[in-house]
Amino acid sequence: MNYPFSDRVLALKPSAIREIFKYASDPSVISLSAGNPAPEAFPVREIAEISAKILKEHPIEALQYSVTEGYTPLRSHLTNYMKQRHGIGRSFDNILITSGAQQVMDLASKSLLNEGDTVLCESPSFIGSLNTFRSYRAHLRGVPMEPDGMSMEGLEQALKEEKRVKFIYTIPNFQNPTGITMSEAKRRRMYELAKKYGVLILEDNPYGDIRFAGKHVEAIKSLDEDGIVIYAGTFSKVISPGMRVGYAIAPQEIIQKMVVCKQGEDVHTNIWSQMVCYEFMAHCDFDTHLKHLRGIYRKKSKIATDAMDRCLMPKVTYHPIEGGLFFWCTLPSSVSMTDFCKQAVQRKVCVVPGSAFLTDENLPCSSFRINYTTPTDEKLVRGIEILGSLAADVIR
Amino acid sequence: MNYPFSDRVLALKPSAIREIFKYASDPSVISLSAGNPAPEAFPVREIAEISAKILKEHPIEALQYSVTEGYTPLRSHLTNYMKQRHGIGRSFDNILITSGAQQVMDLASKSLLNEGDTVLCESPSFIGSLNTFRSYRAHLRGVPMEPDGMSMEGLEQALKEEKRVKFIYTIPNFQNPTGITMSEAKRRRMYELAKKYGVLILEDNPYGDIRFAGKHVEAIKSLDEDGIVIYAGTFSKVISPGMRVGYAIAPQEIIQKMVVCKQGEDVHTNIWSQMVCYEFMAHCDFDTHLKHLRGIYRKKSKIATDAMDRCLMPKVTYHPIEGGLFFWCTLPSSVSMTDFCKQAVQRKVCVVPGSAFLTDENLPCSSFRINYTTPTDEKLVRGIEILGSLAADVIR
Repeated sequence: MNYPFSDRVLALKPSAIREIFKYASDPSVISLSAGNPAPEAFPVREIAEISAKILKEHPIEALQYSVTEGYTPLRSHLTNYMKQRHGIGRSFDNILITSGAQQVMDLASKSLLNEGDTVLCESPSFIGSLNTFRSYRAHLRGVPMEPDGMSMEGLEQALKEEKRVKFIYTIPNFQNPTGITMSEAKRRRMYELAKKYGVLILEDNPYGDIRFAGKHVEAIKSLDEDGIVIYAGTFSKVISPGMRVGYAIAPQEIIQKMVVCKQGEDVHTNIWSQMVCYEFMAHCDFDTHLKHLRGIYRKKSKIATDAMDRCLMPKVTYHPIEGGLFFWCTLPSSVSMTDFCKQAVQRKVCVVPGSAFLTDENLPCSSFRINYTTPTDEKLVRGIEILGSLAADVIR
Repeated sequence: MNYPFSDRVLALKPSAIREIFKYASDPSVISLSAGNPAPEAFPVREIAEISAKILKEHPIEALQYSVTEGYTPLRSHLTNYMKQRHGIGRSFDNILITSGAQQVMDLASKSLLNEGDTVLCESPSFIGSLNTFRSYRAHLRGVPMEPDGMSMEGLEQALKEEKRVKFIYTIPNFQNPTGITMSEAKRRRMYELAKKYGVLILEDNPYGDIRFAGKHVEAIKSLDEDGIVIYAGTFSKVISPGMRVGYAIAPQEIIQKMVVCKQGEDVHTNIWSQMVCYEFMAHCDFDTHLKHLRGIYRKKSKIATDAMDRCLMPKVTYHPIEGGLFFWCTLPSSVSMTDFCKQAVQRKVCVVPGSAFLTDENLPCSSFRINYTTPTDEKLVRGIEILGSLAADVIR
C-alpha cells in the first residue's frame, strides 16, 4: 500500500548526516556524539531504596492511572522549590509534569503553533527541539549566537521582519550544542523585546544545575511579571533521563491547553517515577547531591579540556564552558567540517557535525559537537587524541 | 496577555458534561465513572522484586537515555509472543514501544492525518481517542454500534460518502464504552472493506486479555496480509497503567514515521518500566497471571450484574459483557439521560453520560457508562443501589 502520510511527516526529511550516527552503536567506535549525562552521577542506591519503599507503602498509587497534571506532592514541592531557589513562578503560573522536557517543547508547540507560524531560535540550537517545531510545520528563523548568548540585534531584526512569530526558543545555560551561557543583560533584553513585540519565550533549562564554574545567572522566567515565559525543567540531568520526568512552569491559561494536549498524547507521565523524583527531592539531601554532581562534571570536563589543549589546540579551537554536557569545537574554514567528521568515524571516533543543529542543514558550518560526559575517562582522552591526530593530518 | 493559541486547541471545546467529573474526586461520592483496572489485579510483589533486581543488576541501563523504538528485549519478546499467541505480525511489520496505547493513537494520527481528513469510528467510542483525532483537526464520522459490533452497512455507506478517509478506528473487544465485542464475521468484513476502499484500520485492543466468559475472537490484525492494520496493545490492563507502557505493531513504513514523531514528543518511553514489563512477561508465569486476572474480573462483574439485575432492571437495561471494564446502561427514552446523571451525582454516585462518547455531544443519547472494576465490592453494590432508587423515583 502507498501509505497516505500526513504532510507534516512527509516534510520531515531524514538528515543527510544521520548516517554518521549509525556508527555510534558500533562498540569499537568511541562515541563523543551522545547527549547522555554521566552515568556515575545517577543516585542509584537512593533510587533503589525509594522505589522499594514506594512499592511497599503505596503500591496502588504508584501503579494505577493518575491525573494528567502530575503527582500532586511533586507539583507542590517543585513549585515551592523553584520559587524559593530561583524566583520562578508567580500567582498566575501553574506547573505541569511532563514526560521529559522534550514533551514541554511538544505541548507548547501543539498549543501555540499553526502551520507557517515562526519560531525564533538560537543558531545553532538543539536538534530535538527544532524537529519538534518542524513537526508542527513551523517556520524556523535562526538568530546567530555570540559568546554571551543570542545576538540581540539579530533578535530584534528578526522580530521586526518576521510576521507570525509565536515564541523565541532559548537554552540560556550551557546551550546545546555551543555550551554558551546567556549573560544577565541579554536575558533582560530578550525579555523586554519579547514583551515589546508581543511574543512568548520558551526557556529550556536542562543544564542549569550542572554549573561547575563561574557565577549563576538567574532564569529569564524569574523576570516574568507579565506571563510571557514558558519554563521547561527536567530531572534528566540531575536524577535520571531514563525516567522521562520533566516539567513546565507557565501561565495557567497556557498550562490548561498543554494539559488537554497531554491527555491526548500519553494521559499522564509514569507515576512511579514522579513519586521517586518527589521522594528524592523532598527527603534526600538534594543540595549535597547537586554539589556531588558538579564535582563529577568539573573533574570530567577538566580531563576533556586538558586533552583538547594538548591535542586539538590551536588547529581546532573550542569554546570554554562553565557547565553542561558539551564542547563546541571549530575547524579552520579551509577544512570541510563534514569531511572531518566522516574521517573521524573512519578512525573510530564519532562526533556530531555542527550543521545538524542549524535551521538549514545546508548553511555553512565549521564546527562539531563533543560530549564529554558519556564515555569513560580513558575513552574520552583516547577519542580526543584520535581527533588530534586527524587534525594534524588534514590541517596545515 | 491574550495568548495566541493554535487553531487546533481553540477548537477543543471543554465538554459540557465535564462538570459531572469534578464530583468524582469528592471522597463522599461513589465513582463508577473511572476507567481504571482493578487495583487488586496489580502484580505488586513481582513488580517490586523485578524492580529491585533491575536496579541492582542493570542500574545504568534502567536510568540512562535509551532508543526511541523501545527496549530491544521487550520488542523481541512481544513480537514473538504476539505472533505465536495471536497470529499478529508479518515480515513487513515492526513494533514500537509507546507511552501507553494512547500514544499509539497520537502517533498514528500525527503520521497520517491532515486537517480535514476523516476518521471513521464506532459511535459511541472512547472519548480519549476521539479527542486525539480532534486535536489533529480530523473530521469524525460515527458508525452505529450493533450488538455484534460496528454496523457494516453503516461502515460501507460512510466509506462511499466520505472523501478523505484515512483510517477506521475500532476497539473490537469489550469496547469502551459499550462493552460490545465485534464478531469474527464483522472483523473479516471490516478488513475487506478497508482493503477495497484503500483505507487503514487502527485496531485498539486494551481489553482483549480480560475475557472472563465466551470464546476468544482473533484480532483483525491477525488477518492482515496487506499491511493495512495498525495494532495498539498495552500493559495497562494486564500489569499496570501507571507505568504507561503500550505498543504498536504496524507496517515498518508506518512505524518509521511514528518513531520520528515519538522522538519529538518524549524521546522514548520510561525505560525502567519497559524492563519491568519485559522481565514480567519473560520470567513470571504470564499465562497464570492472566488467568488470575480473569478470575478477579469475573467475580467482580458478577457482583455488578447481580446488583443491576436486582436494582436497575428492567427500568434501566444493560448490555451483558464477556470481558473488559464497562457496562453500558440504557434508560427509557422518556427520561433525560443528562438529568439522570446529574441527579445521580446529587445522590453521590458518579457515572459517565453516554453523550461524552459521541462524535457530536449534542446527538440524542439515553445511555450511560458504569465502571465496575475501580470501586470496592461494597461501594459498587451501594452505588448501583442508589442508581436503582433514583430510577425508581424518576422512571414510571
